[in-house]
Amino acid sequence: MRTRAAVALAPGKPLEIMEVNLEDPKEGEVLVEIKATGICHTDEFTLSGADPEGIFPSILGHEGAGVVVACGPGVTTLKPGDHVIPLYTPECRECPSCLSGKTNLCTAIRNTQGQGLMPDGTTRFSMLDGTPIYHYMGCSTFANHTVMPEIALAKVRDDAPFDKICYIGCGVTTGIGAVINTAGVEIGSTAAVFGLGGIGLNVIQGLRMAGADMIIGVDLNDSRAEMAKKFGMTHFVNPSKIEGSVVQAIVDLTKTEKDQIGGVDYSFDATGNTKVMRDALECSHRGWGVSVIIGVAPAGAEISTRPFQLVTGRVWKGTAFGGAKGRTDVPKFVDWYMNGKIEIDSMITHTMPLERINEAFDLMHRGESIRSVVIY
Amino acid sequence: MRTRAAVALAPGKPLEIMEVNLEDPKEGEVLVEIKATGICHTDEFTLSGADPEGIFPSILGHEGAGVVVACGPGVTTLKPGDHVIPLYTPECRECPSCLSGKTNLCTAIRNTQGQGLMPDGTTRFSMLDGTPIYHYMGCSTFANHTVMPEIALAKVRDDAPFDKICYIGCGVTTGIGAVINTAGVEIGSTAAVFGLGGIGLNVIQGLRMAGADMIIGVDLNDSRAEMAKKFGMTHFVNPSKIEGSVVQAIVDLTKTEKDQIGGVDYSFDATGNTKVMRDALECSHRGWGVSVIIGVAPAGAEISTRPFQLVTGRVWKGTAFGGAKGRTDVPKFVDWYMNGKIEIDSMITHTMPLERINEAFDLMHRGESIRSVVIY
Repeated sequence: MRTRAAVALAPGKPLEIMEVNLEDPKEGEVLVEIKATGICHTDEFTLSGADPEGIFPSILGHEGAGVVVACGPGVTTLKPGDHVIPLYTPECRECPSCLSGKTNLCTAIRNTQGQGLMPDGTTRFSMLDGTPIYHYMGCSTFANHTVMPEIALAKVRDDAPFDKICYIGCGVTTGIGAVINTAGVEIGSTAAVFGLGGIGLNVIQGLRMAGADMIIGVDLNDSRAEMAKKFGMTHFVNPSKIEGSVVQAIVDLTKTEKDQIGGVDYSFDATGNTKVMRDALECSHRGWGVSVIIGVAPAGAEISTRPFQLVTGRVWKGTAFGGAKGRTDVPKFVDWYMNGKIEIDSMITHTMPLERINEAFDLMHRGESIRSVVIY
Repeated sequence: MRTRAAVALAPGKPLEIMEVNLEDPKEGEVLVEIKATGICHTDEFTLSGADPEGIFPSILGHEGAGVVVACGPGVTTLKPGDHVIPLYTPECRECPSCLSGKTNLCTAIRNTQGQGLMPDGTTRFSMLDGTPIYHYMGCSTFANHTVMPEIALAKVRDDAPFDKICYIGCGVTTGIGAVINTAGVEIGSTAAVFGLGGIGLNVIQGLRMAGADMIIGVDLNDSRAEMAKKFGMTHFVNPSKIEGSVVQAIVDLTKTEKDQIGGVDYSFDATGNTKVMRDALECSHRGWGVSVIIGVAPAGAEISTRPFQLVTGRVWKGTAFGGAKGRTDVPKFVDWYMNGKIEIDSMITHTMPLERINEAFDLMHRGESIRSVVIY
């Protein structure tokens, strides 16, 4: 069949809208009509050329929602008409990682996915002249139709709006999951969130859900504080407007009469800046502070600290897709959105048709959007 | 009173054996006759002058065992004749850290202890001419008698030999505690231990106690492998004798038919070398590997890695005194030694009287001892 897609032909160039060929789903694969897709910083990272693993030509996009159109042989858990959210982190429930119960990082199709291929080592997309077009993060939601492995699709309820729940395919789950799955924040905790973009806002609402007492937001841009407050931020620090270090500012904010040491119980980096990651670790509490890295750093960038920070009880960890097991947890997140536990609508600041997808990247570069969504 | 002590008069100089003045215990303090003390790398670190927080003149030593001679006013949990192990990490059971239940890093007397002082801000030791001599890590076990706060003494059973259980005051508890308290190793785990000195051997016996399936020892010195095997090491890697990196060697050792990713579930650095700390992290398993820093790094040294290592599920943490709560856990460790669960005897490779304590440092420098113990 043919479908319409925004194709990344080369790094640093705008996407090009074109008709492309799409082969039928093979064994264990599913054809999905994408109804809506978010545009995420990770798409931008790859499109810009900064991603050393970027492959071109490819169809980007990994934050979608849609409907099953057809199933290949052997597919047992999905049928045409099912509403689904594509998963860039699949959940096969059979590999050592899935069976460990300790991680969401399913390895069933990791190698081929990293190469822009379906599990059999080929692509389903091609140019009209036959040139293969690579898949992206196993999803390629910047196409109106895509083919994906069954294990990379979360079946969700039918009454949830595509143009909102697509955001659960990445940003919402990453931010909230970092709090509830990776950090395991308890009621009454103190926390700091570095970076108040889309991920940071979702971390903040995750902290509110988890019952944190003190939610300190950190951003260089004052204008982001208002929205963050609506999501649950209780204190705001702009590092460019304080004397001394942001670490000291957070330590001072959290000191109490009883606890003269100070520091937050949990901290989150949602900036991708390795210096900020260090601040996030070091502002966490001696003895038990847990710091979670969410942001994607530039290629080759390294984090560092004195080992004393860890020896005195701080824990440094990271999260991918919020530690969520996609097929198990994503339907739950959709339920939480539908019953009002999770807020999404106000974070979708812009919507547009596929033809105007490059505007979404412009809005992101200018810092004007929280999340732009393409509606097919 | 007067007592005999090995005094550190200046960095880089041998200890000097001399008579010193020792004041009576004040409110909440206890006079202890030290019967035996181990000589630890941390004593050497401070004596060498490398420790930026070293204070002189001082009486070093923090790995002792002895008997209560007298109690100051207000002491309720100890009486003369009680056998005790000094704790450089006290356990007040009242500060925010103790009450958190999340850390052993009691803060009740942290500030004064770090300055070489008793909690009232003065020293009990002085030269015969009246010059104050500073305490060390709140213990100063290189004196035949010392004064310590009640909260920094673990009461232990009377039938345990001082010249063996003194090692529980630091090395044994640090190594075994890193495994059972900090890492929380489960039965059937795989693990790597970097550095097969005294701490490393105790990590290895901790792993054996915890039921690890595969215990990989890493050391540049082949001669250390034999002893490590006796403590439970199952595989040995000498990084200087392999092609490729030690990380790759450990990943290869742990790959199985089912798990083609490889990496250990838990890794431990017992070297203090920040490059080794990085290797320890990076050889741990994607998705769930936990790496624990035990070693003390040189002043100013930093650890680093790509954040991708953490984002893909590895956890970086550290441990001090093996995460053990001294007054609660140390008596338990003594019981475990007495009933044969913990082996100590073969690690005490040298004993000597106080007059020959400088030989213990020489043995350590030449790598000839695992642990030297001074018997008073």
